Amino acid sequence: MPTRIVVVGGGAAGIGAAGAARQADPTATVTVFTEYEDVAYSPCGIPYVHGKEIPTFEQLFLAGKEAYVEAGIDIRYETRVTAVDTGRRQVTVEGLGAVPYDRLVLATGFDYADPGVPGGDLGGLYYVKNIRRAMEWDKVLDSVRSAVVVEASPLGLEMTTALAHRGITTHLVDPHPWPLAELADPDIMQPVEDSWGEMGVTTHFNTRIEGFSGDGTVRAVRTTGGEIECDLVAVCTHKQPNTRLAAEAGIETGSTGALVVDERMATSVAGVFAAGDCCELPHGVSRVPIACLTGSHAYSQGKVAGTNAAGGERRYQAVYVPWGMVAGKWMIGGTSFGETLAKALGIPFVMGVADGISRARYYPGVKKVRVKVLAEPAGHKLIGAQMVGGEGIKERADFLGVAVRTGVTLEDLATMENVYSPPIGALNEPISVAAQNALASLRR
Amino acid sequence: MPTRIVVVGGGAAGIGAAGAARQADPTATVTVFTEYEDVAYSPCGIPYVHGKEIPTFEQLFLAGKEAYVEAGIDIRYETRVTAVDTGRRQVTVEGLGAVPYDRLVLATGFDYADPGVPGGDLGGLYYVKNIRRAMEWDKVLDSVRSAVVVEASPLGLEMTTALAHRGITTHLVDPHPWPLAELADPDIMQPVEDSWGEMGVTTHFNTRIEGFSGDGTVRAVRTTGGEIECDLVAVCTHKQPNTRLAAEAGIETGSTGALVVDERMATSVAGVFAAGDCCELPHGVSRVPIACLTGSHAYSQGKVAGTNAAGGERRYQAVYVPWGMVAGKWMIGGTSFGETLAKALGIPFVMGVADGISRARYYPGVKKVRVKVLAEPAGHKLIGAQMVGGEGIKERADFLGVAVRTGVTLEDLATMENVYSPPIGALNEPISVAAQNALASLRR
Repeated sequence: MPTRIVVVGGGAAGIGAAGAARQADPTATVTVFTEYEDVAYSPCGIPYVHGKEIPTFEQLFLAGKEAYVEAGIDIRYETRVTAVDTGRRQVTVEGLGAVPYDRLVLATGFDYADPGVPGGDLGGLYYVKNIRRAMEWDKVLDSVRSAVVVEASPLGLEMTTALAHRGITTHLVDPHPWPLAELADPDIMQPVEDSWGEMGVTTHFNTRIEGFSGDGTVRAVRTTGGEIECDLVAVCTHKQPNTRLAAEAGIETGSTGALVVDERMATSVAGVFAAGDCCELPHGVSRVPIACLTGSHAYSQGKVAGTNAAGGERRYQAVYVPWGMVAGKWMIGGTSFGETLAKALGIPFVMGVADGISRARYYPGVKKVRVKVLAEPAGHKLIGAQMVGGEGIKERADFLGVAVRTGVTLEDLATMENVYSPPIGALNEPISVAAQNALASLRR
Repeated sequence: MPTRIVVVGGGAAGIGAAGAARQADPTATVTVFTEYEDVAYSPCGIPYVHGKEIPTFEQLFLAGKEAYVEAGIDIRYETRVTAVDTGRRQVTVEGLGAVPYDRLVLATGFDYADPGVPGGDLGGLYYVKNIRRAMEWDKVLDSVRSAVVVEASPLGLEMTTALAHRGITTHLVDPHPWPLAELADPDIMQPVEDSWGEMGVTTHFNTRIEGFSGDGTVRAVRTTGGEIECDLVAVCTHKQPNTRLAAEAGIETGSTGALVVDERMATSVAGVFAAGDCCELPHGVSRVPIACLTGSHAYSQGKVAGTNAAGGERRYQAVYVPWGMVAGKWMIGGTSFGETLAKALGIPFVMGVADGISRARYYPGVKKVRVKVLAEPAGHKLIGAQMVGGEGIKERADFLGVAVRTGVTLEDLATMENVYSPPIGALNEPISVAAQNALASLRR
């Protein structure tokens, strides 16, 4: 009898798991249950359609539903799994009853944290997630003149930029002293804040929301800094792992509230794997578990979980979290720790900073690139980096993620060769100069 | 008495050496002799002014002459050094006679290889190098309708692209079967050739030049494939180390004809250092000496030579040669070996190729990125890479250069994390997919 693999969740992790399972064992039956109307679209693209950088939502779809049929993956749309019975190895599915499995992959994703203030049931509060809802909200945005973005999370940064780009009067409210404060350093974020100013965004930092006001529909956000009138609120609170099903089934959760998995993405219960935002993984440097990373992480984890669920052998590594995004008129990014986070966690480090450029200084389109590197004071192994610039941030973040993971040192970076060609690279690579500056600071 | 440091050559290596020497020993006297009218401009920018991508030559100058005076560096312009006497530690300078030194840095650069065919003394043969000559040639280009570029060297690729961009009917003649054949693989160069076709360039590969014809000024290039009429020839033959002075002084040259130096950039003669195109260094993977690298290498080597000449301590590493440039409508690049060169040298390797994209597939401006990675069949350490794409080639080449040098493996790259954010990065990083494909080929 073929192995029956059931996947709960149709996001990047679930679809990655389903595809990898079929690849590892082409005889397996693979069934995916999703509450939504679609799989295989890019939710990460939604802010850019709202911002009118991408013309239509249709472009975000990757493949038609027939592609999954052809791949031998049975996707059940708009179908909710209500319970997991790990003893009997079955899930309870609304409208179907008990569905047995040999291996289960939980890819139940995340929910946005409840703002936890009065007025949360008003209309006009937009939680960016599902593409069908996004299509409806996009029509609403046509008549929105003023919007408030709640929390300067990664999504909050994207939505602030998108709404301003669309011409909507945009306010950003966040309890921290600067945007993305839990991840990025203030000097990295300053150019972003400046460019938001140029785009007409009003930022409200060190400001907590106290409630939403309105008569059926939100008309204002009450904050510790006063009331902000608006037609719409984009709620971009931090992501929380969605583990209700798993927790009710007795599957172990960890310090982040997400599911504990081993290197094979196996949970505490035999035959049950997990992947994506609903599970936690150790940070490569600190070994502290972290959850709710990116779509790229979810997809990679899904592939590992699906392969192992189908009897294959694949291991997922600790994460060093290279990250990057566009905010305002800049690209920001980094890997592992920045200065602020390392200090907050009490991790000792030596640091170097360089303000460089992306092309020859005389070549059209040249942009600033600021790089900060952090390393262990002894041994000088890289432990993190932060960047803001106009070009090449994603590629540098990927590089620095591998560098942290493979034990590259400040000396390696200080003496690295770099491409110099006027249209694509400057004489000095800022990563290398930052490392040179870190070493110079040690000699002083 | 202060240490007297003499530098011969005012290019990137010489100026790098002079600056580093003053930094290492602020009491030293540093004198630079250059045959030219200027130092501290970017010769690498010249093709882009010819191509009308950069408006003026003035933009290529980095600093005024007063900046060097202020920095305590004595630069003697249009001054030729005719001999070196390492026994008496003095150089002979035209118009000055004997000038003593305590430490000498030779940064005498390169010459283009003589095409070695009749007609080399005709007018209209342009050797791209000095900025004053380039300014004069740029005026000539205004009346040039048809040009021939001799050899598809890195400069030849830039000049072909620049002349076509300027609207000149451009022919490229090269004895090899595809452009940059000694460095790049044919599949990497194919998109470049295609884009040249779109730009109206006519390429003549497997074609040797046999002579230049004309009456005082060149009017045609005679080749093994027939005669090509033209108003101008850009001679872009390969670079040869300029070591006449050093060789006459008995300083050791190596297998490439360039000066042999150790890690400190010290030559075979006490007190004499060398840097830049005139010296050779071992390739990091093959250990074979190579010379005439890039401006970035010259500058870095100059800094090492200058530091050590002034009594400091700095070492230069073996080179892995990350490279990158724009050719036609594409960026190309890589590090160390490509498929063709590795095969030619008999270096065993396993390879993986990936055709990826630079942003989310639906995000405006998304470009193709093709990556090939080569690794040792046992141990899987990376030994080289080649790329062609529309974005992020320089940053990836830098990354892969460090990866080869620090022993990063296919497994490291296959499991690397990557930034996924629609405007700046795709779900899958092509470097990682190429490594996954290489490992998959080993399993087959």
